[in-house]
Amino acid sequence: MNQPIGVIDSGVGGLTVAREIMRQLPKEKIVYLGDNQRCPYGPRPVEEVRQYTWQMIHYLREHHSIKMLVIACNTATAAAYEQIKRALDIPVIGVIRPGARSALKVSRSLHIGVIGTIGTIKSEAYQQALLDINNEVIVSSLACPEFVPLVESNNLSSLETYKTITKRLNELHGDENMDTLILGCTHYPMLRPQIQKAMGSRIKLIDSGEETALEVSTVLYHKNLAREESSQPIHHFYTTGSAQMMETIGEQLLGYRPDVKTVRIDQD
Amino acid sequence: MNQPIGVIDSGVGGLTVAREIMRQLPKEKIVYLGDNQRCPYGPRPVEEVRQYTWQMIHYLREHHSIKMLVIACNTATAAAYEQIKRALDIPVIGVIRPGARSALKVSRSLHIGVIGTIGTIKSEAYQQALLDINNEVIVSSLACPEFVPLVESNNLSSLETYKTITKRLNELHGDENMDTLILGCTHYPMLRPQIQKAMGSRIKLIDSGEETALEVSTVLYHKNLAREESSQPIHHFYTTGSAQMMETIGEQLLGYRPDVKTVRIDQD
Repeated sequence: MNQPIGVIDSGVGGLTVAREIMRQLPKEKIVYLGDNQRCPYGPRPVEEVRQYTWQMIHYLREHHSIKMLVIACNTATAAAYEQIKRALDIPVIGVIRPGARSALKVSRSLHIGVIGTIGTIKSEAYQQALLDINNEVIVSSLACPEFVPLVESNNLSSLETYKTITKRLNELHGDENMDTLILGCTHYPMLRPQIQKAMGSRIKLIDSGEETALEVSTVLYHKNLAREESSQPIHHFYTTGSAQMMETIGEQLLGYRPDVKTVRIDQD
Repeated sequence: MNQPIGVIDSGVGGLTVAREIMRQLPKEKIVYLGDNQRCPYGPRPVEEVRQYTWQMIHYLREHHSIKMLVIACNTATAAAYEQIKRALDIPVIGVIRPGARSALKVSRSLHIGVIGTIGTIKSEAYQQALLDINNEVIVSSLACPEFVPLVESNNLSSLETYKTITKRLNELHGDENMDTLILGCTHYPMLRPQIQKAMGSRIKLIDSGEETALEVSTVLYHKNLAREESSQPIHHFYTTGSAQMMETIGEQLLGYRPDVKTVRIDQD
């Protein structure tokens, strides 16, 4: 199965998922598409998020024969995962279920926090995924609409950023029994040190990217789709926005400067 | 999908996997069978392990309609997993791949240790599973034949036990770059505190049971096999050996005293 894995995201956040797939599955090839031009998806109506997500999928499948689709965006997963999974003939992995499953592995108090975009939190997708598996879970959810713009503007380590994060996360501090916090947005791992500091070391953070890559590994194996060729995989990166911006953030995240092409996907 | 998940093991070690399935997937029903009479499998020839494992599977499938099989024994997984996976029409989960995948998620140095029975270590099944995914991994393997008898004799927390463990694990101490150790036997989580102490807090331990239960969760979901009934699940426990012994160890592990029945499985 020499075809690539397609990874789509509203912008650069999904690069944290792509990075984890490269790290955990170094033989696999990736085709990445970020819809930076219309990022963030978080505040948009569900129908619009669905439409944009389908445009990304159509673009990828027209230009590449992908063996699996990873929706590396929590907002898009919350809005469209079930629909897409039913419609496609290849395995589809979202970022919500892997994060929920892993939180249930890690949490002992069964009081689990979730932070995400307005769209993700409003959808209650995490809550539903957690309760589907264990109906004794208590979930504390918090929308953090300031966080994605901080990442997309590449403003990660300033004091201003830390202050914004701390102020928002203070709203979760009443929940003393909480022992696990799901980073319910693929941008948030880029703010992980600041989030860990703000929450305290007692709280275990669940990184969607790490857990999604693990699920990709499991599903590739059980569907007999793992790549067997041993040649070095070549990845491809596309954005609907600034190629240079994705190259800069990509370089910080991936350890090499990816070659990014700008494409149009809204012509259908 | 109201059918139970079948869990088989050479003895009581697989109860750590069953416990994790109950914890992470509290809606699922389990049928457990431990071949205590012929435990340990570790030192036995591969062909014999295969034969005994098939006898357990035949017994379970004759008496219960299971929707998934979990081989909760590293020795049996190493000896027979591929064969069983090909032969059965239900999903089959072993304990080796989940542990290997999780180690690759956790390790940063890519130098990974594996401890297990003589059979598991001799099979090189972990090494193969790790290298299948990432051929830059360095694996240090060590057989610990004394560990299973310590657990099966319910002799967990004595000073003698700790001394035995430390003495054996000292053999791994030359490998300074190692940052992750796979507990490649489902009995070993019962010795986890002693193993962690002997290895030092720097080493991340991978518990086959936790990771296998996570993989059960993922595969149930992607194969549409999760249980949907909300009634409290009732589990069943069988052993080929002493029911009382499994009840005693089960009580320590599961938090309640299971009702265990002794059965014969070698009549075919």
